[in-house]
Amino acid sequence: MMNEQLNMEESEDTKLVDNALVKWKHLYDDELKNVDKFIVENIDSDASLIINIISHILSSGGKRIRPILTILSAKLCGYEGDRHVSLATAIEFFHTATLLHDDVVDESSMRRGSPTANSVWDNSASVLVGDYLLSKAFQIISRDGSLKVLRILSDSSAIITEGEVKQLMATNDLTTNKEQYIDIISSKTSQLFVAACQVGAVISEQKAKNEKALESFGRNLGTAFQIIDDTLDYSAKQEQLGKEIGDDFREGKVTLPIILAYQRADKAEKRFLERSIEWAADGLQEKGDFERAVSIIDKYDVLEDSIETAKEYANRAKQNLSIFPDGEIKQSLLDILDFSVSREY
Amino acid sequence: MMNEQLNMEESEDTKLVDNALVKWKHLYDDELKNVDKFIVENIDSDASLIINIISHILSSGGKRIRPILTILSAKLCGYEGDRHVSLATAIEFFHTATLLHDDVVDESSMRRGSPTANSVWDNSASVLVGDYLLSKAFQIISRDGSLKVLRILSDSSAIITEGEVKQLMATNDLTTNKEQYIDIISSKTSQLFVAACQVGAVISEQKAKNEKALESFGRNLGTAFQIIDDTLDYSAKQEQLGKEIGDDFREGKVTLPIILAYQRADKAEKRFLERSIEWAADGLQEKGDFERAVSIIDKYDVLEDSIETAKEYANRAKQNLSIFPDGEIKQSLLDILDFSVSREY
Repeated sequence: MMNEQLNMEESEDTKLVDNALVKWKHLYDDELKNVDKFIVENIDSDASLIINIISHILSSGGKRIRPILTILSAKLCGYEGDRHVSLATAIEFFHTATLLHDDVVDESSMRRGSPTANSVWDNSASVLVGDYLLSKAFQIISRDGSLKVLRILSDSSAIITEGEVKQLMATNDLTTNKEQYIDIISSKTSQLFVAACQVGAVISEQKAKNEKALESFGRNLGTAFQIIDDTLDYSAKQEQLGKEIGDDFREGKVTLPIILAYQRADKAEKRFLERSIEWAADGLQEKGDFERAVSIIDKYDVLEDSIETAKEYANRAKQNLSIFPDGEIKQSLLDILDFSVSREY
Repeated sequence: MMNEQLNMEESEDTKLVDNALVKWKHLYDDELKNVDKFIVENIDSDASLIINIISHILSSGGKRIRPILTILSAKLCGYEGDRHVSLATAIEFFHTATLLHDDVVDESSMRRGSPTANSVWDNSASVLVGDYLLSKAFQIISRDGSLKVLRILSDSSAIITEGEVKQLMATNDLTTNKEQYIDIISSKTSQLFVAACQVGAVISEQKAKNEKALESFGRNLGTAFQIIDDTLDYSAKQEQLGKEIGDDFREGKVTLPIILAYQRADKAEKRFLERSIEWAADGLQEKGDFERAVSIIDKYDVLEDSIETAKEYANRAKQNLSIFPDGEIKQSLLDILDFSVSREY
């Protein structure tokens, strides 16, 4: 069987998972192992390219935060069945498909310190294997048999893609404002966090109020998570930790740090940002541009304010969980939330 | 509303639709207009890029053969509801998504005489708008509410993508044999014909025997259709009609004409095919190579034999319909089948 070749070994990077996830591992570890088993069972193609690419991407060190959210959300709702395992797998397939397609969109060559699939194979392989994973996600949902789950995931998939298209349209566009930025990340990133959490409530047959609360928790957590992600791409501390930074800048992506910096910049700094961001695609960026952008960002305390915005969303997320009883499960979700806004790597 | 901008005007090319489709237009025309209306209603994004690309691709002259098959299959089964309209739209969305992604995979710049979306916009836009259409297809299925239809479409989607990956792996590989070729096209092309026909039976709640017959009809029709498509890419008659030919050859695709030519070629011809097909990706094709390939294909009557193979599948498809009562609807399907193997353009 080809699927026995699927390499599910964790990379060193995965082993160095974040404190919150390590601390609460006992709450989700069995299920996550079953997710891995379920992945191997479901990726049973006799096309070796599919097996190789999926092995590559799954073993290159993701935090698995989305499937963990499905598992913990289900548990928070007292769920005792096993549908959360297959649906967490579907969520992870969605995420992995998005990563594969994003790498083509961003023309990335590295992700999490490993070469991306499209740099090892090519764009064709990334597009098609991404499509394969999307199909597999919907196959899992079809076997699960809940039309409500199907609705959540197909709606989410449309919203996520629309968000990515809007992000593409906002690239190199310095007229993008904070509200538009939040709208974009709320679609392209938060929506899968929403789906991951909401599915946990739906399979537990929770009342509407609880489902809604988990939905909002996912949205606010996802938004905080993405703001921090975008902030870290300008963080000197990241660089000290040996991570590559400046990708968003080089791609001309207009994220919160750039939006705030541009708003606060003086005339000369504005002109500089216009040349380096708006004309990034035309190769008008020069050596030293990124460092100059970072110095403008530092000058106006942009990163501090970005982190502050992320913390506001984290606080809302915390409020969203207040209707659930205290305990280990709730605490684990709150710790993941805390980690998301305080992580430095 | 942005969606009012969706341009659904038919191109000249669409108006010159094939005889069989024109002849039986009265059987499906009302429904096809409703499909168009349904498309406009469903593509309601405020991202102008989505509207522009979908307008571009939908107005650039497809035959709409897949949604027509869903409509006619449903009618053959005596269906009288309106689910066939929304599901035919979902089938067309799947097909359009596949076209967008294929253009990235094949690095095509022209399709049906119009520039492809990825040449007018870029790969990013084609990937993301393709994903958007896939999501929209699953949204439609979710609203239709049949888990059986979901299973058919999600299984088909996985099979189609797997077929495309296998085609990618077979590119430049002259060891690909006829059986492997049929397996690839049966997945990548026929499977959506299967789904299009099968859905018609499923919503009509036909007994298993009839559903199975329409499923087989779709598979055999799709296989015949693709073999002819692959044959036309080497046809002098096509060239006389002003169509571009030779795309498959230039991309190093190993389709039936090349497989048969390679089997029958003498030593020198084999060496030539090895250089020009196996090394196509490395730019080792030379001026005049395509013409030499065509002369080898002509020498060994390869096109005639390919068309013969297509006709065998068409005959099987004809047999598949024998259990249905004679009448206009059945005749329209048989005429579409006949057209598929006799078309010259």
